[in-house]
Amino acid sequence: MTPPLVSRRAVLVGGAGLAGLGIGAATVGLTREPDVAPGSGTLPFYGARQSGITTPPTAHAQYIGLDLVDPADVPTLQGVLNLWTQDAARLTQAQPSLSDTEPELATLAGNLTATVGVGDRIFRAPALTRLRPSWLQPLPSFSIDRLDPRWGQTDLLLSLASDDPVVLAHATRMLTASVRRSVRVRWVQRGFRNSPGMTTGTMRNLFGQVDGTVQPASDTYDNLLWDDGAEQSWMADGTSLVLRRISMNMDTWEAIDRRGRELSMGRTLDTGAPLTGTDEFDDPVFSATRGGIPVIPASSHIARAHRRHDREQFLRRAYNYDDPPEPGSADTSNSGLLFAAYQRNPVTQYVPVQQRLADHDDLNTWTTPIGSAVYAMLPGATESRPLGASLFDAAGRGSGGAPQK
Amino acid sequence: MTPPLVSRRAVLVGGAGLAGLGIGAATVGLTREPDVAPGSGTLPFYGARQSGITTPPTAHAQYIGLDLVDPADVPTLQGVLNLWTQDAARLTQAQPSLSDTEPELATLAGNLTATVGVGDRIFRAPALTRLRPSWLQPLPSFSIDRLDPRWGQTDLLLSLASDDPVVLAHATRMLTASVRRSVRVRWVQRGFRNSPGMTTGTMRNLFGQVDGTVQPASDTYDNLLWDDGAEQSWMADGTSLVLRRISMNMDTWEAIDRRGRELSMGRTLDTGAPLTGTDEFDDPVFSATRGGIPVIPASSHIARAHRRHDREQFLRRAYNYDDPPEPGSADTSNSGLLFAAYQRNPVTQYVPVQQRLADHDDLNTWTTPIGSAVYAMLPGATESRPLGASLFDAAGRGSGGAPQK
Repeated sequence: MTPPLVSRRAVLVGGAGLAGLGIGAATVGLTREPDVAPGSGTLPFYGARQSGITTPPTAHAQYIGLDLVDPADVPTLQGVLNLWTQDAARLTQAQPSLSDTEPELATLAGNLTATVGVGDRIFRAPALTRLRPSWLQPLPSFSIDRLDPRWGQTDLLLSLASDDPVVLAHATRMLTASVRRSVRVRWVQRGFRNSPGMTTGTMRNLFGQVDGTVQPASDTYDNLLWDDGAEQSWMADGTSLVLRRISMNMDTWEAIDRRGRELSMGRTLDTGAPLTGTDEFDDPVFSATRGGIPVIPASSHIARAHRRHDREQFLRRAYNYDDPPEPGSADTSNSGLLFAAYQRNPVTQYVPVQQRLADHDDLNTWTTPIGSAVYAMLPGATESRPLGASLFDAAGRGSGGAPQK
Repeated sequence: MTPPLVSRRAVLVGGAGLAGLGIGAATVGLTREPDVAPGSGTLPFYGARQSGITTPPTAHAQYIGLDLVDPADVPTLQGVLNLWTQDAARLTQAQPSLSDTEPELATLAGNLTATVGVGDRIFRAPALTRLRPSWLQPLPSFSIDRLDPRWGQTDLLLSLASDDPVVLAHATRMLTASVRRSVRVRWVQRGFRNSPGMTTGTMRNLFGQVDGTVQPASDTYDNLLWDDGAEQSWMADGTSLVLRRISMNMDTWEAIDRRGRELSMGRTLDTGAPLTGTDEFDDPVFSATRGGIPVIPASSHIARAHRRHDREQFLRRAYNYDDPPEPGSADTSNSGLLFAAYQRNPVTQYVPVQQRLADHDDLNTWTTPIGSAVYAMLPGATESRPLGASLFDAAGRGSGGAPQK
């Protein structure tokens, strides 16, 4: 029946995650011991699969959407990916980038990851047309969407994450300034969780809810997360990302009482346990009733989001955002969630769940999707094969394209 | 002659700062031990002087500029300050605010401080006119200024700082939502340093420079920082804040070579030592020459900024900002410094230095002040006397004004 669900953190913390978290027999003192402070480690850049997807979420993330100046210019795309590979391989290891202009800001990595994806438009280039994954297309239009093109689809996604905001600012600068002649930054979406070492467990969003409890078990990643190359061989070990910017209306949320909030979610606010349980990771019992009334309303978020098939699972890696209200607006907040869902195929895994939530989800009263984009997240890079190598190989270009001038 | 200058951190770390930093015999492990992680402590809210000024700078800060809906409405001003006192006293101690709508987000403080100041306009109210400190006025216009009214003077300043971004978002929400009928948020300026525990020592700005080396010694605070009540007795134990938003042009800065940057600053980029020294805290020797040429150019930032009189000192507590470029702009960055200077009297302490820098400072080539405001930072609150009590006492209103309805 339903495979057991575990928290992603519980999975990650089991093994290699320890090194990534920089946690060992660490004693914090006043002397400089940056290698032992929570969040001060490094994560690998090279590997069959990109870091920043199943590696532990860091405190800060920055999603940068960029458009190619000429989306049909495949050599330039290749040059950008070569440059990003060269520089991210260094910055993630706490080394200055090749032409680093502020090398003093590169002495820490704070578990920096740089994860790169491509949007559907790059596949309009004749050399790439036949290489587009069939699922790499705009999501269907959902009735709840109020999409602002300002947060819409771009040609490239550079997703940076670090436990340190100075590291993130520096990496952003190095990786965007070096390619400024080839791409234009269309948007930057900045998110955060708690600072390193502050708390453990599943994050909370700005509604106060535990957010991200239900995750696929790590032993399903080879099936549900990582592409196996069956449709597009170049995508093997890649994945897809659906990035949704979800505005959360603090005013109206705060106007309802605690019980109303918990019923809309189907979970308690304090522990995040389903209303039929006592622990966050208890399986919800949707059939349970009290006085003939379902304990977890059928219209609640978890009842609606709960998968109908094993296929309807994806890895969630959300961050809070809390930007200043737009100048001149009467809004009292500009807060929400950068909802990131990773899965092998968004059409079969993500869309059915999102469609169900769009049809009805009590939480829709207070949440509004205002941005949406889908990316093919590239397979990992190695020292001899930069990001995108398998794509350019498949296009007959080889992976040795000259770096951008 | 010149009194010895020491770093603020060196002073703070000497004593009570230890508790504030949350550093003890701490071992970081995978179990939840929030009280021992760097940055997870609490700082006092009540006291003769407000926290958040001489307490150790946290990783994140948020300056919130607010205008009273009716600037002449003194009872409402008093109500706002009463509410902020009540709620900040709780939130800073990791307790939910009085009507906290997301109490689960209040279980951490991350060294949260809430520090409040008032702008000159509130003193136009007849009851307060004679109570305006003479220095509480707009700064003179400097030739280098390109001030955007978007970052200009407001009636109130709520300065929040925490080592945790979720704490900061929650505190911002609680402290602004509760007063939304009385005040309007005009701007929010968000800044950051390294995450807790990542590094020690003076911060670096996004030019890569060590920033904030020269600070008044803590034994001068009673003279240079805290008001003694001589001019306005209600201001005793208060201070002033000059908040300048300084845009830093990454493109042009990165176009010059390392030597050119160091000469413009008068310090090396790696250690921050003056060009005549080897250690960050070495006193610069402005008279030193090499081949007849000053080692530290007379036009360099530190030569121009160096005080001509003992009075020309102020406590600097800067944060980096790195916002997304404005939508539609061709800028490749929107970065800079939230420069905060605290001193008893900005006219005699800050302005002479700023005037000298405006007349000439090599760094002006790459930096532009785009925001400026001056605040009277209130004396501290106690359990029986909320923020502003001495002001309202002096105005004959007493401190027991009814909280805002």
